Amino acid sequence: MPLTPEQKDEIERARAQSNLTRRATVPALEEILYEAIPVLDHGFVRVIDYMGDDNAVVQAARVSYGRGTKKVSEDKALIFYLLRHRHTTPFEMCEIKYHVKLPIFVARQWIRHRTANVNEYSARYSILDKEFYLPSPEHLAAQSSTNRQGRGEVLSAEEARRVLDLLREDSERAYRGYVELLNHDEEGRVIDPGRTGIARELARMNLSLNFYTQWYWKTDLHNLLHFLDLRADSHAQYEIRAYAEAMIGTVERWVPMTAEAFRQYRRGGAHLSAAGLEVVKRLIAGEKVEQAESGLSKREWAELMAALGR
Amino acid sequence: MPLTPEQKDEIERARAQSNLTRRATVPALEEILYEAIPVLDHGFVRVIDYMGDDNAVVQAARVSYGRGTKKVSEDKALIFYLLRHRHTTPFEMCEIKYHVKLPIFVARQWIRHRTANVNEYSARYSILDKEFYLPSPEHLAAQSSTNRQGRGEVLSAEEARRVLDLLREDSERAYRGYVELLNHDEEGRVIDPGRTGIARELARMNLSLNFYTQWYWKTDLHNLLHFLDLRADSHAQYEIRAYAEAMIGTVERWVPMTAEAFRQYRRGGAHLSAAGLEVVKRLIAGEKVEQAESGLSKREWAELMAALGR
Amino acid sequence: MPLTPEQKDEIERARAQSNLTRRATVPALEEILYEAIPVLDHGFVRVIDYMGDDNAVVQAARVSYGRGTKKVSEDKALIFYLLRHRHTTPFEMCEIKYHVKLPIFVARQWIRHRTANVNEYSARYSILDKEFYLPSPEHLAAQSSTNRQGRGEVLSAEEARRVLDLLREDSERAYRGYVELLNHDEEGRVIDPGRTGIARELARMNLSLNFYTQWYWKTDLHNLLHFLDLRADSHAQYEIRAYAEAMIGTVERWVPMTAEAFRQYRRGGAHLSAAGLEVVKRLIAGEKVEQAESGLSKREWAELMAALGR
Amino acid sequence: MPLTPEQKDEIERARAQSNLTRRATVPALEEILYEAIPVLDHGFVRVIDYMGDDNAVVQAARVSYGRGTKKVSEDKALIFYLLRHRHTTPFEMCEIKYHVKLPIFVARQWIRHRTANVNEYSARYSILDKEFYLPSPEHLAAQSSTNRQGRGEVLSAEEARRVLDLLREDSERAYRGYVELLNHDEEGRVIDPGRTGIARELARMNLSLNFYTQWYWKTDLHNLLHFLDLRADSHAQYEIRAYAEAMIGTVERWVPMTAEAFRQYRRGGAHLSAAGLEVVKRLIAGEKVEQAESGLSKREWAELMAALGR
Repeated sequence: MPLTPEQKDEIERARAQSNLTRRATVPALEEILYEAIPVLDHGFVRVIDYMGDDNAVVQAARVSYGRGTKKVSEDKALIFYLLRHRHTTPFEMCEIKYHVKLPIFVARQWIRHRTANVNEYSARYSILDKEFYLPSPEHLAAQSSTNRQGRGEVLSAEEARRVLDLLREDSERAYRGYVELLNHDEEGRVIDPGRTGIARELARMNLSLNFYTQWYWKTDLHNLLHFLDLRADSHAQYEIRAYAEAMIGTVERWVPMTAEAFRQYRRGGAHLSAAGLEVVKRLIAGEKVEQAESGLSKREWAELMAALGR
Repeated sequence: MPLTPEQKDEIERARAQSNLTRRATVPALEEILYEAIPVLDHGFVRVIDYMGDDNAVVQAARVSYGRGTKKVSEDKALIFYLLRHRHTTPFEMCEIKYHVKLPIFVARQWIRHRTANVNEYSARYSILDKEFYLPSPEHLAAQSSTNRQGRGEVLSAEEARRVLDLLREDSERAYRGYVELLNHDEEGRVIDPGRTGIARELARMNLSLNFYTQWYWKTDLHNLLHFLDLRADSHAQYEIRAYAEAMIGTVERWVPMTAEAFRQYRRGGAHLSAAGLEVVKRLIAGEKVEQAESGLSKREWAELMAALGR
Repeated sequence: MPLTPEQKDEIERARAQSNLTRRATVPALEEILYEAIPVLDHGFVRVIDYMGDDNAVVQAARVSYGRGTKKVSEDKALIFYLLRHRHTTPFEMCEIKYHVKLPIFVARQWIRHRTANVNEYSARYSILDKEFYLPSPEHLAAQSSTNRQGRGEVLSAEEARRVLDLLREDSERAYRGYVELLNHDEEGRVIDPGRTGIARELARMNLSLNFYTQWYWKTDLHNLLHFLDLRADSHAQYEIRAYAEAMIGTVERWVPMTAEAFRQYRRGGAHLSAAGLEVVKRLIAGEKVEQAESGLSKREWAELMAALGR
Repeated sequence: MPLTPEQKDEIERARAQSNLTRRATVPALEEILYEAIPVLDHGFVRVIDYMGDDNAVVQAARVSYGRGTKKVSEDKALIFYLLRHRHTTPFEMCEIKYHVKLPIFVARQWIRHRTANVNEYSARYSILDKEFYLPSPEHLAAQSSTNRQGRGEVLSAEEARRVLDLLREDSERAYRGYVELLNHDEEGRVIDPGRTGIARELARMNLSLNFYTQWYWKTDLHNLLHFLDLRADSHAQYEIRAYAEAMIGTVERWVPMTAEAFRQYRRGGAHLSAAGLEVVKRLIAGEKVEQAESGLSKREWAELMAALGR
């Protein structure tokens, strides 16, 4: 993640601010505010603003819980209760804004989460940098033989080298084509005064999906947890998972109680189907249960046994 | 808007905070943070949190406008440009949270704006206060004779008195019924130990739509402007307009450049239809134009002439 | 649910249609199209339009699953897989539109589901009918002693009678006040030519929350299932549950495979927290587990034991 | 737009259906149902389902306009009134579903419209076809000298040829790389049994942004009109405008009255700012107005004069 000196300066200037506010602040999050957390080879995630904290969740729940609440429940218990019982609106009262640099194919998955605000760097307006994603060899894997949308075995060192060579060469060539189409180099200088070049909005189509883009992405805590639950999941593609994991770290700084409830009820635990619940009841009763007569498909049975650690 | 001493204390405690933050702050908005701005007879609007400022709009627009922007456009011109050309996403990067106390019939109109986060005081969980809205005499008006959904002439003093007596008596009676159904008085004391009373979720149905409820309401700047544009409009019901107008005051403190652009392009100005534009062109050319041959309906013609101040 | 002869006529006329279409149709749903399914004392739910069927879900999933899919999975297995793994977007491809008549306090809960389209009968524009909800005696219950937002024991016959008398009288009085404020009776006739009355948008505030309103409500299948999951839940207030249950019946006609998956994975089954899953594993291993050392709160422990039928 | 014989067959089979329904149908739209309308060199738009018609808009508005409406306004006048006064919810009662094949860079703009349902062909799951967009020479233009995000002069024939050669060669090469990375050819055959290849979710990153993807896209009429208004606008990039224009044709078949109101109030006409309105008033009064003293920036002045045809 090579930040330019100018970018580093801007970040340092932002971090040097110290303003007085009547709003709630979260020192653990302020500590890393504006800092670029590296993800993949050239990407990053930066928290650039936030609103609210664990207490804002509690407070919102208690508007609903105004006079009539005789005994004030303990904050953490309330947050756990809310998350467990899917009372999700109080978590919408906190908001966070990230600046993210990410490969375009990751951006294409990410943008499917519609309940967020996005401003993306415009390649109609500006020239994209020559930065593209190359997986590290340990993430270069063959198609999974059991999962039609996942990875299987990691490539041999030799095949990995070959793959990376191909990716690098094609990306380099794509960028050369881009620059030639623009008739402007990376620095914005005209290449050949005898040609006009084509518009930026056209030239960009020559770039491949591993080129980096960047955006501001802002969402509320409820929708963020939903995003993280799906995208940090083991079924998510590794590259977006890497972002989700970096962001979970920021959530732990921001709203530690909510983060703990999230681990307890969303990331940990398991959802049992009606038939799965019956199997569990029988197992607890000491019965022997076979997949064939369980009412579960083989796939579901395997998923249930995995959840039960059997 | 009679706040209890406890509520005043809570507000004062919140206002007494002074925290250090690296985030952008808006002193003019901090000045009124947490304060209750009175609306109608018992309602209020309080800004209780915010994120971002005019500069956050500019910054978000310029992510889209990264390298390649040689000459930095002036912030205000950019904000005006964005609002004029409906580039609305940068305005979504700012967020504000209000605490609002409002009559239920106003809440029912307000909630139709779906792109917001809401936590409402729960009458399943708590007992509602005995607070109901009575219009001031100058807002008591007859059905409009020309507009099926609006008000016409203000009532005579005598009829107004009679109306207010009826509203007050019926509201008082509704609350007496509510308390009796609960078998608990406003202070939560059992009225008749020989009865069980009915659940709060049932008893509330005896209250009328002028009783006050309250909620936390949070939205982004783009959706807030859309809300204010519709609800501060002269066609909106007076009671919700009163809230919208109080909130416009908070927007002016928060994001003064955006507020000015909003006045210039949304609240001021006019939208001309294709046919309306033709009429304007002909008028400018010095032609005489009559409604009958204008292609406009009588109603549209009247609206256009009103916009043109004729 | 007393429909007027005019309303019955309109419904019959709509049902008498028989149009040719190239679109997919669902005969089991067509059978009840436009019919009013009674709910509560004066309410109803009517399916008035729909788009798509179980096959539309499958088809949408397989756009994602185009060439490369060698073996076509069986439709039902695919629907089950999608719902189990929270691949929710294919379910958004089906749409349904209801006409609902419901008490205002139910409408206020319902409207909290924001991902739907709504057109409500306007009491600014029209005069509301004299129709209000009175619970049947078996649904008149005291506040729950264990659940701050629920009902407990059903009232004695005598107290129920007294409650219903109060509700009826207050509702009658509220409507009388409404009519007097309007200075127009239910049929729209002026009552006292010497008075002007007040605008409809003002007079409605005298009505209580048990009066009926009506709306068109349209949503997609994914969001409908989410609504039904929350609102048919035993923690939901009885009155909205009654609507949810009637609507589940329409879903079973419309998309029987999806409805079965919904029963299997959403309504049936249970979600275990991380700590709850540990308890289950230990129980299956034959260990004795006590709440105190389980890591679960008393409340969570009770919920888990209930799910396990212990 | 080369459809395979299998695809043509599927479309013909779908078109051959003839089902009876009690729902409203729109013969003019049924006529083209399922048909692929060509867009760009390999893309298309197909209407694959719909719900509602002009009358559904009227009907939804009149739920709001129930008893109390003495004189039934004419449907078209009502639709015009609704669109003019931004009463947008009745238009949400109609829904349409498209199947679209489009270049990835177009898909990236399109997806920014969040109020829609999408299922995209998954390149994690399946192998993408070798189909990429090459602009026709008349759409190959230089960067605009006045608009930082638009096109200016069309390229000379010679430069256009050179650009197309580069785009074609780079796209061909990108696809060759993709296939080699997969170690499977377009038909799914293993290329080199000595290599494992990499997972589809990785290999796709070698493709450039002009490759075609496809999706099901479903939205309601209100959000569709908003999409079309922005994307058929002259400021939109040509490639997405081509889709918007094809879709406007389908809207004209589907809801002709709404389509006419859309032309009248959205596509035609102009929005005047407060200052712009003052200029217009002065022009009508026969005054001479100069930009310098108009309160408008040069850019706004130019936009206003263009709208007024001066």
